[in-house]
Amino acid sequence: MNQPALDLHKKYTGKLETVAKMGKLHKELLPLVYTPGVADVCRAIAENPELAYSHTLKGRTVAVISDGSAVLGLGNIGAEASLPVMEGKSLLLKEFGGVDSFPLVLNTQVPEEIITFVKQVAPTFAGINLEDIKAPGCFQIEEALQNIGIPVFHDDQHGTAIVVKAALLNAAKVVGKPFDSLNVVIVGAGAAGLSVARMLLGLECLGKTCSLLPKVDRVADVIIVDRIGALVSGRESQNMYKQSLADSSNKRMRKGSLVTVAKNADVIIGVSGPGAIAPEIVESMADKPIVFALANPVPEIDPELAKKAGAAIVATGRSNMPNQINNVLAFPGIFRAVIQGKLPKITQQMKQAAAHALAECVEKPTAENIIPTPFHPRLANIVAGAVLNT
Amino acid sequence: MNQPALDLHKKYTGKLETVAKMGKLHKELLPLVYTPGVADVCRAIAENPELAYSHTLKGRTVAVISDGSAVLGLGNIGAEASLPVMEGKSLLLKEFGGVDSFPLVLNTQVPEEIITFVKQVAPTFAGINLEDIKAPGCFQIEEALQNIGIPVFHDDQHGTAIVVKAALLNAAKVVGKPFDSLNVVIVGAGAAGLSVARMLLGLECLGKTCSLLPKVDRVADVIIVDRIGALVSGRESQNMYKQSLADSSNKRMRKGSLVTVAKNADVIIGVSGPGAIAPEIVESMADKPIVFALANPVPEIDPELAKKAGAAIVATGRSNMPNQINNVLAFPGIFRAVIQGKLPKITQQMKQAAAHALAECVEKPTAENIIPTPFHPRLANIVAGAVLNT
Repeated sequence: MNQPALDLHKKYTGKLETVAKMGKLHKELLPLVYTPGVADVCRAIAENPELAYSHTLKGRTVAVISDGSAVLGLGNIGAEASLPVMEGKSLLLKEFGGVDSFPLVLNTQVPEEIITFVKQVAPTFAGINLEDIKAPGCFQIEEALQNIGIPVFHDDQHGTAIVVKAALLNAAKVVGKPFDSLNVVIVGAGAAGLSVARMLLGLECLGKTCSLLPKVDRVADVIIVDRIGALVSGRESQNMYKQSLADSSNKRMRKGSLVTVAKNADVIIGVSGPGAIAPEIVESMADKPIVFALANPVPEIDPELAKKAGAAIVATGRSNMPNQINNVLAFPGIFRAVIQGKLPKITQQMKQAAAHALAECVEKPTAENIIPTPFHPRLANIVAGAVLNT
Repeated sequence: MNQPALDLHKKYTGKLETVAKMGKLHKELLPLVYTPGVADVCRAIAENPELAYSHTLKGRTVAVISDGSAVLGLGNIGAEASLPVMEGKSLLLKEFGGVDSFPLVLNTQVPEEIITFVKQVAPTFAGINLEDIKAPGCFQIEEALQNIGIPVFHDDQHGTAIVVKAALLNAAKVVGKPFDSLNVVIVGAGAAGLSVARMLLGLECLGKTCSLLPKVDRVADVIIVDRIGALVSGRESQNMYKQSLADSSNKRMRKGSLVTVAKNADVIIGVSGPGAIAPEIVESMADKPIVFALANPVPEIDPELAKKAGAAIVATGRSNMPNQINNVLAFPGIFRAVIQGKLPKITQQMKQAAAHALAECVEKPTAENIIPTPFHPRLANIVAGAVLNT
């Protein structure tokens, strides 16, 4: 038990507070922030809806929405139990991105109902961060919400994918292999696994169709492995999203388990759970293997064991180890761009640009320094700038 | 145009901000408020859901939810245009009640969809304040949400009713008439009108049935007038809510227009719109007439004209006149009680108790001082105390 974390949450009754931006509401302020003065602000927005962005919190606030169905490594723990994570996310958005944010946890896990909910609440916000919603529902939900006028961004997919790509761009430099020569194996075919594969292959996927984005760095190939084995075109037990990716990856159509397909791979990326990557698998990889073991809090392989097995570079999701692959490097800057640019959506090209900008924040990548820390002072501005220049 | 109000909203991009209660997120704090430390807080709540009240913002935060269908005197202006009012409401909850709050404006006005929305978002909050939702949908919505585990309180109904009853208790003392002798006419049969009637008659209404609450002060009779005329049992063009109240009010079954039924009334309460109460109507009332003209920003009758026509006591909704009947006197204390007591619902008895507590805040009522000001220092605590002692 992490008693300091429990104590901190109890001390403040959670973490996020709502306050008046103009300070104490004295007698002269009251008729401006509420009736009768507020009526003219309402009238102005009714005449020109665009003013909601300049005269209400909509212009600087995003929602963090979860159904509690896939929370951290804890699984389906439901709405209330997921709230500490969502509150934390809102805090990070403010601290690192300067973006106001409020968490909403839902007592439904039906994709169609979540879609309706987000559409209904959209007028309140400049953007929506979906969080900890299990696959494949998360894909269905996000696709259905791409054209509602404000961006909907599932961080478990895209935040992870952006940071992994950034880290891999630098890792390739460190081991002296061209990015487009890399053969990558991804362990885990959930929200993060499929999204990382799309990012590394430079794909844009909608429903059953994946297409190649123009002008994007891509690796040579990706093989995604789920509980059954490698995703391969035509395999059974693949949902629509796995199937469409299988058609666009695993070019040599290799079948079988992780042990089989990881042989001679340049990169292995774990987005599954503790123990999924045995040392023997690392030993079977190509020269100078790159291992990202991202399960949290316990990685797929202990970093020390991975190094003993020959890994040239190891990254994890943990803050107390080198090379922390952490979504917080990406989402504050992404939503900073959403706010600054009043963006209607976050495109796949914007995510690619964010990954490159993040990679470039490390001036001289080394085996223990392939990715910046969250406390890099200008990180969110750099990421936001890259997104807005796309 | 109220330029200072517009300028203020633009200066701050709205009014409500979200901040971390523990201040800046330095390196040691980060793993406590987010992964990995937060995982143990999630686990603890998953095991004991009650801890959501002590370890997350749920324990101190309410939602202000509107569909923008009946905003102030502006009517159906939609979600975005209603947001300044809802943000303002959240500010008042914090300033006067010490309650955190977040506004949610919805792009649906279908009662069934609003009911579903509130049920889905309920795990996030300790209570829900419904705001500016038009009648009769507001009655249907609130009734359907009475047993979802957290209180749902439509302020346009109950906030108004509580403050009106408090003001009338004191006004009766000032004119020297026993409260239970008063004959009251209410102009307007929307959310506020019907709720004020229920409050003054000491009724509890659910669907088609109204019953008398025990041990409650009630006036002698109430006649409610809508655009057609007095509500009376069996009249045509009465929705279910008007019909049930007609059965429990207007005991002598008087028919006809406001001009007809206001003759010899002791009290007239306007909750409709400008011009609804002509001076001749006040002249036709009983001795020492009490006139509450609550339409905002323009009252049903100009207070000076009402006095010239013989009104002994006049109250309005305006802050620049004596006797301001303002919901802000009630809702901060009501929600303070919700937070302090983890109340699952706000009963009709609690609302009655809040009205009496409010009235007693004025030590010596006079014709120009029947109700406290919002800046009364202990108001929310007094109201909350009365609610919690019910």
